[in-house]
Formats: sequence, C-alpha cells, structure tokens
Amino acid sequence: MRSVTILGATGSIGTSTLDLIERAPDRFRVEALTAHSDVAGLAAAARRTGARIAVIGDAARLPALREALAGSDTEAAGGAEAIVEAAARGADWTMAAIVGLAGLRPVMAALAAGATVALANKEALVSAGEIMIAAARDAGARLLPVDSEHNAVFQCYEPDPARIARIILTASGGPFRRASLEEMRGVTPAQAVKHPNWSMGAKISVDSATMMNKGLELIEAFHLFPVGADRLDVLVHPQSVVHSMVEYVDGSTLAQLGTPDMRTPIAHTLAWPQRMETPSARLDLAAIGRLEFEAADEVRFPALRLARAALRAGGARPAVLNAANESAVAAFLAGRIGFLDIAAIVEEVLAHYEPDAPTCLADVLAIDAEARLHAERRMERVTA
Amino acid sequence: MRSVTILGATGSIGTSTLDLIERAPDRFRVEALTAHSDVAGLAAAARRTGARIAVIGDAARLPALREALAGSDTEAAGGAEAIVEAAARGADWTMAAIVGLAGLRPVMAALAAGATVALANKEALVSAGEIMIAAARDAGARLLPVDSEHNAVFQCYEPDPARIARIILTASGGPFRRASLEEMRGVTPAQAVKHPNWSMGAKISVDSATMMNKGLELIEAFHLFPVGADRLDVLVHPQSVVHSMVEYVDGSTLAQLGTPDMRTPIAHTLAWPQRMETPSARLDLAAIGRLEFEAADEVRFPALRLARAALRAGGARPAVLNAANESAVAAFLAGRIGFLDIAAIVEEVLAHYEPDAPTCLADVLAIDAEARLHAERRMERVTA
Repeated sequence: MRSVTILGATGSIGTSTLDLIERAPDRFRVEALTAHSDVAGLAAAARRTGARIAVIGDAARLPALREALAGSDTEAAGGAEAIVEAAARGADWTMAAIVGLAGLRPVMAALAAGATVALANKEALVSAGEIMIAAARDAGARLLPVDSEHNAVFQCYEPDPARIARIILTASGGPFRRASLEEMRGVTPAQAVKHPNWSMGAKISVDSATMMNKGLELIEAFHLFPVGADRLDVLVHPQSVVHSMVEYVDGSTLAQLGTPDMRTPIAHTLAWPQRMETPSARLDLAAIGRLEFEAADEVRFPALRLARAALRAGGARPAVLNAANESAVAAFLAGRIGFLDIAAIVEEVLAHYEPDAPTCLADVLAIDAEARLHAERRMERVTA
Repeated sequence: MRSVTILGATGSIGTSTLDLIERAPDRFRVEALTAHSDVAGLAAAARRTGARIAVIGDAARLPALREALAGSDTEAAGGAEAIVEAAARGADWTMAAIVGLAGLRPVMAALAAGATVALANKEALVSAGEIMIAAARDAGARLLPVDSEHNAVFQCYEPDPARIARIILTASGGPFRRASLEEMRGVTPAQAVKHPNWSMGAKISVDSATMMNKGLELIEAFHLFPVGADRLDVLVHPQSVVHSMVEYVDGSTLAQLGTPDMRTPIAHTLAWPQRMETPSARLDLAAIGRLEFEAADEVRFPALRLARAALRAGGARPAVLNAANESAVAAFLAGRIGFLDIAAIVEEVLAHYEPDAPTCLADVLAIDAEARLHAERRMERVTA
C-alpha cells in the first residue's frame, strides 16, 4: 500500500491522477489533497478517497471547505503555508501538479521529505532547475517526469549520456502551426486555448499556441536528462502520437507513442519501475494512418528562440523568461494584450532585466517577482 | 578485447558485421570466419582481420581457400562439419548469419559453447525454436536478435510479459503491397527481389514480397519474447522507419526507429548491454516528412495466414512451413514456379504432411528433409 499526495488535485492532471488511484484502492492510500480554490471538487475527492487532509490554497475558503468536509475523517486546512506543510508530510509518492511557480515551494518541501515526486509542474523546474535537482539529490528523493514529452524521453532513456546522440521533443505546433504572423496578430484567447490534440488548462494551452511550452520543455529536459543543451532538439509532429524520442549513437531512435491521454504518463510514474494497467484508449496506428513531421519555425514562433537562448545563457535567464511569460499569458487571457505581444513582452523583459544567477529558493522567488513587475510595466505601455 | 566469430561472413549481414568490427580493431579479435562458397571474399576478410581460422562450406573449394590464404596466419578448413567445429570454438560473441536451415547446426554448436549468439538466421529459430531456446538456457548462452524487427522489439522490451499488451512487428508490405493477386501472378524473380527499402539477399527479398518473411518473424518473435501468439501482431508500414513496437498495459507504445542500415541492429548486439557508435546515417524525420501505417491483408498475402496458423498449431508445423517455403522460393528463383505458387505449395505441403512435434535436432532435420521432398513432388506437378 503506497501513500500518495496530490498537489493540485482538482486540475486536469490532478483529476486524472485521482481517476487512476480510485481504480486501484487496494494499492494506494491518499495522504493529502490540495487545490487552489475549488472547494467542492476538493471536498468531493477527499470524501471519495478518504484523504487524511485536504488543503485549500485560498485561505478565505477554509470555512467553506470545513463545511463541505463535515462528518468525514478528512482534516481541513487552508493557505499557502498549509499546502507546503501538506507536501512535507512525506507520502511515498507525490504528484506535483500545481500550475506555475506557485508550485515551487510545495515541490521543494516534498523533495526535502525524500519522497518520489511525479513532476507535472514545469515552471518550477524551469526557474529553479539546478536548485531542485540538488535538493532531490541531497534528500535522496526521485523526480519522475509527467509531461508527456519528458515521460516519453524517460521511458526511452538509457541513463548514460555517452550513448545519446540527441533528445528530440515533439511539438504539435499548436493551433497556429500553419498560420502567418499576420494571422496570429488577431488571435483571441478562445482561439488560442483550443489545442488540436490535448485537453489542457488555459495557461499551458496558450503556451502551446506560442510554442513557449516547447521552449520551457527544452529547459526542463536540460535538467532532467544531463546531455547538454546542444543535444536537445524540437520536431513538429501535428498528430501528437509520438510523444518524444531519444536518438542513440548507434543510429537507433527510441520513441514512446500513445493516444493523448495523460493517464498513461501519470500511471507510468505511479507504477514505476513496474507498470500498471490504465483505461487509456489503445493506439491504433492503422486507423490513424499517417504521422507527419516537420522542422520547427523559430521565426513565426519566437518564443522557441527566446527559450533556447535563455537555456544556453543559463543563470537567471530561464527564471526571467518563465516569469515574464506567466505574466504575459495572464494578460493575454484577460484580454489586455495581443497574442504576438506575449513573446514580445518576454523578449523585452529579458533584454532589460539581467539579475545574477539564483543560489537559493528565495533568490528564485525574488527574481520571479521582479521579472513580473518588469513585464507589468511593459504591458501597461502596450495597453496604454 | 572480445573474440568474435562470423558464421556467414561474406553475405549481407556478414559484411556489415565485418565493417563494424574493422572500425574498432582495439575492441574485437576475430576467431573464425565462415562462408558457403565465396573463397575470394572469405580469404580477403580473413587477411584484413587476422582471423584465426577461415572455413569454406563447399569442401571442394578448400584447395582454392588454402591458396588464397597462403602466407597468412589464418588456418583454412572446409566442409559442413568444419563450420560446426568453427562455431564450437566458443568465441565471446558469434554472429549467426548463415541463411536457411543450413545454419541450424552451427548455431546449436555456438549455443552449446555458452557464447553470446547474435541471431540473424531466422529459419533455424522458426524450425527448431523450442530446441534452440532450451539449448541456450541449458548452456547459459544468450541469444540476441539481429533482424531489424526483433532487435527493435528487444530494444523496447521490458522482460515481464505481464506488462505487455502487444508486440507489433512492422512490415514494409514489400514491392507488391498495392498489387492485386492478378498482377502478382506474373511477377518475375527480378521484380520480386527488388525490395523498396532494404538491400538484402535474394531468399529474404522473395520472402518479403510474399510476406512469408513477416510470418516467419511472428514465429521467431514467439520464441524470443514469451508473450504468447495472441499478443503478436503485424502492421504494414511502407517506409520501414519504425522497425517494430511494444505496447504496454498502461497505453505506452515503445518503438525503435532508424534508417534501413543493418549495422545499427548488428552494433546493438555487438555492444549490448552498452552501445557503440556506428556510421549508419542518422534518421531525419523532418526530411522524411510522413510515416504511414495500414492493416496487413492476409487475402493477397496468404503466406501470412499460413504462418499464423502454423504458429498457433505449434509442434512440427513451423518446421514444415519453413522447409516448404525454402524449397518453393528456390524453385521460384530458378524460374520453375510462379510467384503465387510459393504460398500455394506451402499450403499444400502443410495440408498433406503432418509429422509429430520434433524433440531433438535430428527430428527437425528429418522433418525439414521430408517436407522438402513433399514440396518437390508438388512442384513437379505444377511445372509438369
């Protein structure tokens, strides 16, 4: 019986994780569930799974959570600190599925407890990669990637960088793969969040549309698979069937394929180093018929170029990139800036804010906050 | 320094193996090289590599081999028994690349010596699978598959049948993938040996054209990967880029991809469990652009149906299938029977010759000889 904690239990990844755990009640016991603001979803999941504690991030909603959990055995808590404490309880396996840099402190707490952490939060690794990897090593914790691309690489990866020629992250190209820059100028939030293959949250859907998502994933891969920035590539593959690949020095390329169902990579991390059954639809390549591949276009998708440059420069650049992007995407979703402004804002912030490399978590959070301020100031100018 | 022996050194697989070994002279020392009749090729390879012994299968050519090796340090030998003795010298690694059932006794000798055997000879495994696998187990020898499909499966295979949903062997579909039965009726040997993607010997090229090759590979896979006949599938993939796949119970499908260069799978078995560099061209999926998949058609390619039935029935059926096919392919290449007669002859022999399951090597050889006689008699009727 493994104890599991889900940080971000009511989002897309969290509910898929709950689905798998609830199908195997004899194998998993739920320690803690957390959510940002969805009291009803959190309380219902806690009741179904008999979670020991449920934590709502928005402390103002704690009374509502208490009411929703009345009569159950689940303890209720609220606020950002309570989420960090829940992560620190040291379940055998923790799903880190809080979106954005808000997930960083809880992930660090889970790693410090020496747990196995399934990481679906890419922003934390992008902004604080060196610090997270060092914390995991020091605590003897293990990071297992959940992103479909990194989980695919993980499944194909023989842990000896000398054998590896290239790691190739596939990218759907998003909803605007064929669009001109002119066509992209007028894109609305509703158009941008319509991903062709995956059903995901709004923030990551916009990142897919700008291809910043793939840029962040390059940085994530850099930390997870120590082969160096020069051996990380992106390949556009509109069908999103091949989730990523590893090319070896003997000419073999290993790939992981599947239908677009996050329960497959989540289950891989839940069962690792074994495997477990999932209800994911099976891949039928004869029915799909055709898989296509094309080079990525960094002119129409400048976010990819910016992320690559930030990766090569290292230091604080990835954290600045990520913070500016989070701010710009939020502003785009709020209708404050245009679609092409997202990458433009990120580029401007990177050009004007060049802090020293972070050496601790506090540095990362300070850089992140400062980069968001820079982004805000520039967006006020755009929308003025 | 590993000692290596190549059984079938002058054929397509043998010369590719020599190419790899000659590029890494500090890692490999050649023990024995054998060939059926190519004295000049064998002697040249023996001189280049400093092989300890060179064996020509056709004993009448031994004087010519002695002359060709005069002044070298390589011992010369000739005849079928000498090939078996060369295999029994127990090199650290033996490439079994003799085509057809002629390769069975040398492979068994190499296995009995407890060596690692890279198996490119599929007919031996098809006809004598249980006996070979038992011999390898008893001697503590290891069989590593060289066929691009089985090597691909081997690279993707986690050795726990409970995790595996399906093993999917890809098939190019051969040169007549789109041809009607009527069009196939008049096919000449020259047309049949023109494989769209791979440069191979005549026998295996004809087997690819009838798809008997894929049928034999299903039987081979059955012995190499103990998941049972029901979990073995074939998928047509004309580009031959995805060499085969393993589907897991969690919905993950792992695939091995590459350019059509046998040096990649050979190198995988040479370096295993490490990897070594090869000069194989790297896969460029953006340049290839598109990979296609379709279901296999057992109506136009009855060899596939016959092989599947032989696999399910077990016992002597695969040995009869293989022997009848070898005879029929030889007759087709000699212009004695038509292309569609190949599968028809195999089906007739299977219908009229039903020996008991073999329990030893002698049984297999007797069944093989008898099945060839049956095939001959039926072909005489066809050509009469």
